[in-house]
Amino acid sequence: MAAPMVTLTTDFGTTDPWVASVKAALLTVNPDMKICDISHAVPKHDVVTGSFTLYRCFRDFPQWTIHLCVVDPGVGGSRRPILVTTDGYYFVGPDNGVFSYIYETETVERVIHITADHYFHKPVSQTFHARDVFAPIVGWLSKGIESASFGDLIEDYQRIPVPMDRIVGDNLLKGEVCAVDHFGNLITNIRLKTLKEFSQRTGKSRFKVLIAGRELQILTGGYQQKADLFALINSSDLVEISSSTRSAAEVLGITVRGKEVGVMGDG
Amino acid sequence: MAAPMVTLTTDFGTTDPWVASVKAALLTVNPDMKICDISHAVPKHDVVTGSFTLYRCFRDFPQWTIHLCVVDPGVGGSRRPILVTTDGYYFVGPDNGVFSYIYETETVERVIHITADHYFHKPVSQTFHARDVFAPIVGWLSKGIESASFGDLIEDYQRIPVPMDRIVGDNLLKGEVCAVDHFGNLITNIRLKTLKEFSQRTGKSRFKVLIAGRELQILTGGYQQKADLFALINSSDLVEISSSTRSAAEVLGITVRGKEVGVMGDG
Amino acid sequence: MAAPMVTLTTDFGTTDPWVASVKAALLTVNPDMKICDISHAVPKHDVVTGSFTLYRCFRDFPQWTIHLCVVDPGVGGSRRPILVTTDGYYFVGPDNGVFSYIYETETVERVIHITADHYFHKPVSQTFHARDVFAPIVGWLSKGIESASFGDLIEDYQRIPVPMDRIVGDNLLKGEVCAVDHFGNLITNIRLKTLKEFSQRTGKSRFKVLIAGRELQILTGGYQQKADLFALINSSDLVEISSSTRSAAEVLGITVRGKEVGVMGDG
Repeated sequence: MAAPMVTLTTDFGTTDPWVASVKAALLTVNPDMKICDISHAVPKHDVVTGSFTLYRCFRDFPQWTIHLCVVDPGVGGSRRPILVTTDGYYFVGPDNGVFSYIYETETVERVIHITADHYFHKPVSQTFHARDVFAPIVGWLSKGIESASFGDLIEDYQRIPVPMDRIVGDNLLKGEVCAVDHFGNLITNIRLKTLKEFSQRTGKSRFKVLIAGRELQILTGGYQQKADLFALINSSDLVEISSSTRSAAEVLGITVRGKEVGVMGDG
Repeated sequence: MAAPMVTLTTDFGTTDPWVASVKAALLTVNPDMKICDISHAVPKHDVVTGSFTLYRCFRDFPQWTIHLCVVDPGVGGSRRPILVTTDGYYFVGPDNGVFSYIYETETVERVIHITADHYFHKPVSQTFHARDVFAPIVGWLSKGIESASFGDLIEDYQRIPVPMDRIVGDNLLKGEVCAVDHFGNLITNIRLKTLKEFSQRTGKSRFKVLIAGRELQILTGGYQQKADLFALINSSDLVEISSSTRSAAEVLGITVRGKEVGVMGDG
Repeated sequence: MAAPMVTLTTDFGTTDPWVASVKAALLTVNPDMKICDISHAVPKHDVVTGSFTLYRCFRDFPQWTIHLCVVDPGVGGSRRPILVTTDGYYFVGPDNGVFSYIYETETVERVIHITADHYFHKPVSQTFHARDVFAPIVGWLSKGIESASFGDLIEDYQRIPVPMDRIVGDNLLKGEVCAVDHFGNLITNIRLKTLKEFSQRTGKSRFKVLIAGRELQILTGGYQQKADLFALINSSDLVEISSSTRSAAEVLGITVRGKEVGVMGDG
């Protein structure tokens, strides 16, 4: 049973009225819905960043929250609209890989290809499925319509090769910077969970982080460190590179995602 | 009967606490009100763009939503506060032409000059009528107070000459670019409705769009076109110029509203 | 008794999902809570501007609104989380001086050092107390938990020397520009209340404002003045410097806070 709560993650920006129209469509179907913006500043058409943005925070929401994520360069084309159910949340959006981080890390119970067009906002425009397809489906889902009513189960939903952390040798765990945050912290895809697995395999309990020719310790005391540059486990259980004096992005000259990061046992 | 839903369209930005104060004023009068931001990034004092921004999306909201639009360079001066009722919505804001697109395209049932100052937030500041005049009126309207209680009917409300599409010859329909969206699409004021009328007059069913020395076809398949530059009917039933490879704004070097656009029958 | 309304003032920006996670934490505890963003564009780590931003608008909210303000460069360090109760509002955030304008201008009834960690979101991260400590406390407070349940009374909460207006001589009232708003208006910390006191002491009822070598009159008619540059009492009862033709910031070349402003009796 869906909670009547929906989150929005898009690349729409907030200057145009696009986000408002999506909310209007949601509230038209279910006036009791609570709507929470995650971000509308995903870089245009950057499906990977959209996926990672949602991944960073979706677990903070109450169980059965519906996460609507629309980074959709293929709107109006042949890509399918889908509804993904995991063991705790719903996800609605285009089948273009935008939920790949969910597929990689969560237990996916079913993926429905949304075809029940009697639920859509008519006429369905060619350019704005967030308003005409996805939002109405979210609205009806939040009102208790069974997910099976929206279409058929599919197995061939699109996974794209989003950057994941991976243990690649006896003493090397590899990942990359997946976001540069507002404060210039570098957020990697290296999960606490993988670090624990790496620790078991290597027998090490202390690690150093390698980035851009630098070796950093993983510290445990938040941002109040004496080090100019250091690593920590952040509030999304991901390795993050930070600086107590400036921004880590500035210190390392890294402003976009993609930079390789390594972790090795230390001592 | 007003739905307890209000939308906000302003040029206030989101750095200062102005928008928050408007919401505070709304919720002080009616704590059950649902508030939806349309945009707070209307260029400063640009009444025409404010009007067009609201025009692009107001119909997406449930009937009797109250649209509060404050682009108000004349705040504290002699311009009047007004409440406009059409056959489906309410509009509240300054009488400076900010509702001109509504006047041009909708059935206006009545315009009230708001004078009932016992509804205002006291003392009324000279610089923030959105908080002190408009928001309280919206709040009371949403609680079921009759619009006639807020003041007297007027006929001489201000229409400003906002750019409208117009059929200007045997085979020419003229309009202009009224917004450049977040994705670089050029949104014109040429309505599907006018295009249909033009089609009837000319007997043509295919059209070409003329802009900046280019001739573009109006395609029907969304943004997934093979053409570098093309036109389509967008989700607001307006002719829009788009590109499947880059942004149309970039291709044509158009970054602000005002560029002339023509439509001619084709073939 | 807290109203189930909370405002948010942070330096988090709106690109990252931080604000969403705070809202998720609030709604997890109290799904009926109403949340109103004040600003997420406080300059990074600028506690003084955070304090002033909240000060400009907190009174517009209904009594017993909970104001959550997180500009928190010391997150994860030794600074304490606090709950401030005045005679009309609650304030929750770090004890780093971010409520100094409240301390200077309001009647503080009690300040609680928040220690009751059974209310926190577990595990408490080192880097995101807004989600893990402050938001849950706000949630429980809004559900009627007594403020005394969250920890012990303290007297030594941190006041920082935020810029305040002050009468410094027989005929001089001094203050400074504390914000440059979206329209280029210069918002000072000179309060109407202090101006009235100054008027009583000096016996003057007209004043001139001195800034950057200019002498300006305090006018009473809003932004519709004939003067290129003038002062007025704004909607937060603060002296503001404005221009009817351009932006005052541009006229005076002032883009950041800190510029000294004087007021003298006139005539």
